[in-house]
Amino acid sequence: MPHVSLPGGQPGIIGLLAAFRASERPLNDLANAVMHGPSTLTAAERELIAAFVSRGNECEFCCNSHAAAARHLYGPRAALVDAVLADPAAADLDDEMRALLAIAAKVRRDGRLVTADDVRRARDAGADDRAIHDTVLIAAMFSMFNRYVDGLATVAPADPAVYDEIGARIATKGYGSQFRTPAPGGTP
Amino acid sequence: MPHVSLPGGQPGIIGLLAAFRASERPLNDLANAVMHGPSTLTAAERELIAAFVSRGNECEFCCNSHAAAARHLYGPRAALVDAVLADPAAADLDDEMRALLAIAAKVRRDGRLVTADDVRRARDAGADDRAIHDTVLIAAMFSMFNRYVDGLATVAPADPAVYDEIGARIATKGYGSQFRTPAPGGTP
Repeated sequence: MPHVSLPGGQPGIIGLLAAFRASERPLNDLANAVMHGPSTLTAAERELIAAFVSRGNECEFCCNSHAAAARHLYGPRAALVDAVLADPAAADLDDEMRALLAIAAKVRRDGRLVTADDVRRARDAGADDRAIHDTVLIAAMFSMFNRYVDGLATVAPADPAVYDEIGARIATKGYGSQFRTPAPGGTP
Repeated sequence: MPHVSLPGGQPGIIGLLAAFRASERPLNDLANAVMHGPSTLTAAERELIAAFVSRGNECEFCCNSHAAAARHLYGPRAALVDAVLADPAAADLDDEMRALLAIAAKVRRDGRLVTADDVRRARDAGADDRAIHDTVLIAAMFSMFNRYVDGLATVAPADPAVYDEIGARIATKGYGSQFRTPAPGGTP
């Protein structure tokens, strides 16, 4: 049971955004800017990093939602998403994404773990400043979203179809109020 | 040395916001909404939670900046900030803030650590849904900011006067572009 009243009964962050409106738009705007704004990483790569970080933090709702978004965005290469979540070392990743996921895994634990060598490895594989910055910010941002969702004990549905629908909406429309039904009992 | 080029040479998140403009406004808007928007917690209490979480994550730039902001906002009670950062158990906190800081400390480590008992203790001491929500979101948000600042190896100045000035600006003006000088070499 969630730690606070979520009138709409909606799962994960969707219920929190509907019930606490003051932070809804800024959180959606941030997600849109980082995940769908200008970047040298594709939206598919960014959603994969988000799912990978959320898996590391064992946040079921976020991992399933962003894995679904990444599958929709990778299209014919969707199997890569499940391969990375199952075992990144064995997944058919290019060297750049492998190096960036290694950085993301460290940021998830503690930003100070990222070394100049980690960054050099990513650069040698083709990553530019923007890709390195965006990887760190995505890993940091999902360290927030995962804690927000789990720290308030929101509900994670068991049905994979729920996440597939969420992922399809993220992939095509980004982040925003399309995810919630109006919750008149919400807190301003 | 920072892991990415920060043309303005500015410290901590200030340099990142100046160099990476696409995420500057959404990050500032989020901080303003959560730290200075409607809440049943005072701005002083929210800055204290931010400093406390940043201390736990050992993010020097964030801890020093938000401790300074909290000191400015607490005014005559500013010594409380240093007492909490030195030893929260010994600090002269009311029961509500003590219970909320305990929740924040758990969220910082892993959101799933927060129990129904932790939340009941905060409610018994006077916290409402809004205070509990905002505490979790602040702890989650600084788990992001701390990782963003340290994951890119930004510089934390040694001079306490730098943080006092940052804290005064946060306390009086909130979060925004007043913190940066224009960085024409910044990445869109």
